[in-house]
Amino acid sequence: MADWQEITGGVTAPRGYQASGITAGLKPSGLPDLALIWSDVEAIAAGVFTTSQVKAACVDYCRQRLQAKHGARAILCNAGQANAATGDQGVQDAQESAELLARELHISPGSILLASTGVIGQRIKMDALRNGIPKLVAALSETGSDAAAGAIITTDLVPKSIALETTIGDRPVRIGGIAKGSGMIHPNMATMLAFVTCDAAVSTALWQQMLARAANRSFNSITVDGDTSTNDSLIALANGQSRTPAITEMGAEAEKLEAMLTAVCQHLAKAIARDGEGATCLIEVQVTGAHDELSARQIAKTIAGSSLVKSAIFGRDPNWGRIAAAAGRAGVHFEQENLQIKLGNFLMLENGQPLSFDRAAASAYLRQVAAESSLPKDFMATNNSNDLSVDRSTIAAQRVDNPVIIAVSVGNGYGSGKAWGCDLSYDYVKINAEYTT
Amino acid sequence: MADWQEITGGVTAPRGYQASGITAGLKPSGLPDLALIWSDVEAIAAGVFTTSQVKAACVDYCRQRLQAKHGARAILCNAGQANAATGDQGVQDAQESAELLARELHISPGSILLASTGVIGQRIKMDALRNGIPKLVAALSETGSDAAAGAIITTDLVPKSIALETTIGDRPVRIGGIAKGSGMIHPNMATMLAFVTCDAAVSTALWQQMLARAANRSFNSITVDGDTSTNDSLIALANGQSRTPAITEMGAEAEKLEAMLTAVCQHLAKAIARDGEGATCLIEVQVTGAHDELSARQIAKTIAGSSLVKSAIFGRDPNWGRIAAAAGRAGVHFEQENLQIKLGNFLMLENGQPLSFDRAAASAYLRQVAAESSLPKDFMATNNSNDLSVDRSTIAAQRVDNPVIIAVSVGNGYGSGKAWGCDLSYDYVKINAEYTT
Repeated sequence: MADWQEITGGVTAPRGYQASGITAGLKPSGLPDLALIWSDVEAIAAGVFTTSQVKAACVDYCRQRLQAKHGARAILCNAGQANAATGDQGVQDAQESAELLARELHISPGSILLASTGVIGQRIKMDALRNGIPKLVAALSETGSDAAAGAIITTDLVPKSIALETTIGDRPVRIGGIAKGSGMIHPNMATMLAFVTCDAAVSTALWQQMLARAANRSFNSITVDGDTSTNDSLIALANGQSRTPAITEMGAEAEKLEAMLTAVCQHLAKAIARDGEGATCLIEVQVTGAHDELSARQIAKTIAGSSLVKSAIFGRDPNWGRIAAAAGRAGVHFEQENLQIKLGNFLMLENGQPLSFDRAAASAYLRQVAAESSLPKDFMATNNSNDLSVDRSTIAAQRVDNPVIIAVSVGNGYGSGKAWGCDLSYDYVKINAEYTT
Repeated sequence: MADWQEITGGVTAPRGYQASGITAGLKPSGLPDLALIWSDVEAIAAGVFTTSQVKAACVDYCRQRLQAKHGARAILCNAGQANAATGDQGVQDAQESAELLARELHISPGSILLASTGVIGQRIKMDALRNGIPKLVAALSETGSDAAAGAIITTDLVPKSIALETTIGDRPVRIGGIAKGSGMIHPNMATMLAFVTCDAAVSTALWQQMLARAANRSFNSITVDGDTSTNDSLIALANGQSRTPAITEMGAEAEKLEAMLTAVCQHLAKAIARDGEGATCLIEVQVTGAHDELSARQIAKTIAGSSLVKSAIFGRDPNWGRIAAAAGRAGVHFEQENLQIKLGNFLMLENGQPLSFDRAAASAYLRQVAAESSLPKDFMATNNSNDLSVDRSTIAAQRVDNPVIIAVSVGNGYGSGKAWGCDLSYDYVKINAEYTT
């Protein structure tokens, strides 16, 4: 039983935050493309960034800022240009973006964190950014989360947002988050951005540790096509405006906060996986019986990332052989006579040997999950990304809460872990191949 | 300039080998499905096998055999059933297969090595195997390589075969090989098998070392979809029938032999990559300037295995951003300002920054490579897998010798390495999804 409840409000649900999202003219499509998250007071800031050797200017910028100072007042995000592989000019553009915003907000540039998503090799359209920043600041609002969520997405089918509330002592503590994923219809689009706000008071070191662990159990446990981008960024602020006592070491309260942070990150991560290019369903792989959590997660990620497994699920084919083969090559030792594989409620392999099962019913299970979590036929026609109605949120939640379940046990160990992915469809190839030069 | 020439004859090109391939009734299709390679004298035997934790019975069998004794007279391979995840019964079936063949050949079962390919979870059809073995032995011939090559393939579009000759001292030394790849129209088909014969005299330890290095530079440097199978096996025999002096330590002659062994393995590996499910072209990634060969190969494999890169190539999209992103996430440190990317003759990125290039011409280059290495329209209609005519071999060679070249430099180091893959097409998804339960 989760120790929290879902609330509305996204990144502005926690106290002391405002957000905004506007159309600054960065995206050729004319859709919203500039977002701001603002904390009324200086917040503790933690970040997890792409491990790629090829990084966007904003990633280097944030890493340096967070090394110098673990605090921030604002996160600025542009969509349209990734500002990656843009050399010294890209670094200058990032710096100028922070300075422009700082002047408008009357704070130090050192209190601003940056994120970009868009085409690799393209500089930010600085003229549009310069014109946009005053409007962006003017649009800040305590109900601005949906506008920000809509302005950071690129070709995501649905916006990604969540907020949860628990109590620490007698007081409510909230964590909210928005994210963008990998609906990469345009070429070179960077993959994932997530911004998390929290109103608890927590020490810098603890917050960074919590975020790193939460990232491993969420964003680092999803796979769409195994490609890590140049711009991947997860930034989390904690501003203490819940007026709860400061959490400075691990204990019951810290665990409660970390569990809720992990739940926020997992929701956003699953929403990203479900929205993978061309995907028709979310796949959750649950691995138990491993030596430790890391090993379990490694096996789960390998299964979730297997092209053969992914295309079998798209074909509604209960193909346990591919699941077994993927588990076997995960780089984790186990005895194959201990291997057990379950798809939904269908037990297919036990003690490393195949069982007879109802293939037609197992295939029907896959078809049913996909049907239940599909978008309504007129979804894209009747809604554009600006129309962030309740209906869209309900649909987004359905898509995340109803995955295909692959449960694998590899032995008698206490290690368990999960990973999430999506199926591999014709549309993945279509989306990623059909860019006409 | 290579120090060898290509000859005909496949695995029976080296002296003292015979081979055969027959239809034993293991495959439902009625195509050839049982192959034998035979050495007139006991040969040194080396093997490289799947690293998967889920292994076929034949893999465990060969590993144990080769630990006990580094020699062999024969390799028996069945296609149709993988004999993986078949438990104790599978182990007994493997043992019985070896004993049946040993009796027919009047040798010890300990001199026989085994390989299987087919559906995971299915036992070998032992009745068909029992009936087939006498016919298989009776069919042994010094020109039997093509028959064997035809009997080990599953749904490969073309058979895979090569033989090279060099001289050591004054005498000719030959290495031949056949392989099967990953045209996996049926579900659960195991991925790759390769058998290599050599008539040089070489010490056991040296032969195993040479094979392990050659495997890293060939079969371990290809990727179709990143999925390692339960049955992957590379077995190489060296029988000394060239009557050259025994090679017992590294030196000029050993290097010559190893270079030729590597070339045989690379040809077969490239043929497998080209024949990846749904592929329209072979992709060769050349990485230079890395710290060492391993790092270079790691970057090359990551690029060749990237779904985003693969689908861009299928879309004939000269999308250097995806190549840069894949290089960056390979887990190998480099400075992004040293990154250089070339596609064919088109230099796209230098010093980590994009260059302007003729996108239309680069796209045309990709289209041209694919067109030149495509199968003739009537290829499958006019030829079946039994018809191993010269025309098929010529076509097979064209497909391998004309890859899309992606050349990446990451710095000033001396490490270079190559990897091979194929593009990701609609047909990959179709082949792997459309299995109706």
